[in-house]
Amino acid sequence: MDEQIALMEAFDRTEVRLAGHGARDIAVLQEALAEVEDTLAADMYGTGAVIEEFQAEMAEVLGKECSVFFPSGTMAQQIALRIWSDREGSRRVAYHPLCHLEIHEQDGLKELHHLEPLLLGGRDRLITLDDVKNMGPGIACLLLELPQREIGGQLPAYTELEAISAYCREQGIRLHLDGARLFEVLPYYGKTAAEVCGLFDSVYISFYKGIGGIAGAVLAGSRDFTEESKIWKRRHGGDLISLYPYIVPARYYYKQRIGRMSEYYEQAKELAALFNSCHKVSTLPEVPVSNMFHIHFALSREQLAPVLMGIYNETGIGLTPRLKPIGENSCYYELNIGDVYGGVSGPALREAFRLLDERLKQL
Amino acid sequence: MDEQIALMEAFDRTEVRLAGHGARDIAVLQEALAEVEDTLAADMYGTGAVIEEFQAEMAEVLGKECSVFFPSGTMAQQIALRIWSDREGSRRVAYHPLCHLEIHEQDGLKELHHLEPLLLGGRDRLITLDDVKNMGPGIACLLLELPQREIGGQLPAYTELEAISAYCREQGIRLHLDGARLFEVLPYYGKTAAEVCGLFDSVYISFYKGIGGIAGAVLAGSRDFTEESKIWKRRHGGDLISLYPYIVPARYYYKQRIGRMSEYYEQAKELAALFNSCHKVSTLPEVPVSNMFHIHFALSREQLAPVLMGIYNETGIGLTPRLKPIGENSCYYELNIGDVYGGVSGPALREAFRLLDERLKQL
Repeated sequence: MDEQIALMEAFDRTEVRLAGHGARDIAVLQEALAEVEDTLAADMYGTGAVIEEFQAEMAEVLGKECSVFFPSGTMAQQIALRIWSDREGSRRVAYHPLCHLEIHEQDGLKELHHLEPLLLGGRDRLITLDDVKNMGPGIACLLLELPQREIGGQLPAYTELEAISAYCREQGIRLHLDGARLFEVLPYYGKTAAEVCGLFDSVYISFYKGIGGIAGAVLAGSRDFTEESKIWKRRHGGDLISLYPYIVPARYYYKQRIGRMSEYYEQAKELAALFNSCHKVSTLPEVPVSNMFHIHFALSREQLAPVLMGIYNETGIGLTPRLKPIGENSCYYELNIGDVYGGVSGPALREAFRLLDERLKQL
Repeated sequence: MDEQIALMEAFDRTEVRLAGHGARDIAVLQEALAEVEDTLAADMYGTGAVIEEFQAEMAEVLGKECSVFFPSGTMAQQIALRIWSDREGSRRVAYHPLCHLEIHEQDGLKELHHLEPLLLGGRDRLITLDDVKNMGPGIACLLLELPQREIGGQLPAYTELEAISAYCREQGIRLHLDGARLFEVLPYYGKTAAEVCGLFDSVYISFYKGIGGIAGAVLAGSRDFTEESKIWKRRHGGDLISLYPYIVPARYYYKQRIGRMSEYYEQAKELAALFNSCHKVSTLPEVPVSNMFHIHFALSREQLAPVLMGIYNETGIGLTPRLKPIGENSCYYELNIGDVYGGVSGPALREAFRLLDERLKQL
């Protein structure tokens, strides 16, 4: 544990980082607010131009009739599944074993909504069309996460996705998109957001991953679906008197970064190749399909941490503040490319990777 | 309905208002942010100085071991009642028929937590010690709202409150405080927040009523209670990656206005007396016990609106943008004194009330 703290401290002292959009500090909010008139009226319980205009914009981007701004995706997605469950008269929904709802939400879906998720696919692979065909009867809604974050941000082939969507429509199974990182995968798919969302009945997107806002989410679908979601938003305690402190940055950083997703994707492939050139290192996926990937090391966390700290201290380049162990002899971390990668000097980066490879080879 | 819109438009044109702290616009957030360093780090999922320090401050103010910042009171209070219900092994809780949870939350308490509220007291009066003594067995938690907003912000005598608290302790009934406007009643009670909260097992306070922040709430109690509330906060989708856009203003406006509650209270009494001096007008309570009261008119909304519009147009003073009917021949509205009242000219105000009285007398 001491080694973990030492790694974090060494990372905090570095001047150059490879991931993210920079410090999560209050300047992020101040920059966004500086772009709007200070007489802009607050939204009031879901009404007012600041929320209604953004919801209309996002509905159009996603190709859906309506959208609703939520304080969190946790809230939005539980509600989406609850609505489909109520409509279909079945408590059974299906999602991946490493779905956000299964591992990061303290079982809110079960404790608050009493839904019964079927875990589909495996912890080390994507959900396939065959999985969907074999899930048995009575599933009200299938949730697909694009990309599947907890396995490095993997994606099904687009034709597979289309086939799953067609099968669900045919069988009367509602299809919900966990699109926390939807914008990030569009360059790989070569599709618009509306094209991908057209395969789904409902869609959630997030504003603080690739977009780099502060918090907040949008849930989109048909008008009757989004109107029902507003009732549940009130019930969850998410219909705040004013959500503009999240909406204004969401809109500002969306405009600033939506055009940069291809760049992040290309940079992710470049950086993954550098990692894969090192001994005892591999990325998942080997070739990224978005701005994110996981870096796996065939070394224990205790063996690796001192090597990384040495690199941080000597080069001033920080790779990660923390490592997660997998069993006894390997560990990994997640990396998301954002604005800061473009500012890293190429020669300095190659030198850091030369050092990393050299030291890992000796272990 | 056209008359309602006309009244709102006439109100929007007035230059002077009697209620509130001024426009709810983005300048409210900008002013608060200007007071902190722009390198202040964001809170991350409930951790970090910005949230932890404020929670510690509020716990001290409320005389409780710990407190947790929530995006909304709706979320905080459902969770408080759920925790007590689980601990006592009973789904039954008790509150006033006009409790926020009963009339403003789309039945979240019932739909998400399956609690069964007993409605105690009457729609036109406070809950009394006798009501509590007669509520029968099996009540896990009693919620008291101080002041009882929907009946004009009435308060029980402090001795009655002490007696209810003593009775609940004796009977093993948990007592929860809906303190949305707790700070606003302290001058009348002549007590500190900690003294009042000492009568309760758990307490919720709000930051956008008298305090005038943007949104947000605190739930306070023993450490085991607040730790459990954090699990439910995650389940509800309220454990946002960053809540600082609400915390920074809550802290800023708390400091700015906590010392002004006596002033608001005195001004509320002064203004209520002016209303009560007019024909066909009475306030509830007749003498306010906080910064708020209701103004009742023995006239239909349709009769009254043109009179008010005349006053707005001639004096530039706006009383209210809307009126709520009660039956066919009366209507009312709610008024909360805030910062703007202190800027109203005394002679202009008296002239407006002279006109109001004169015209109401003729109807």
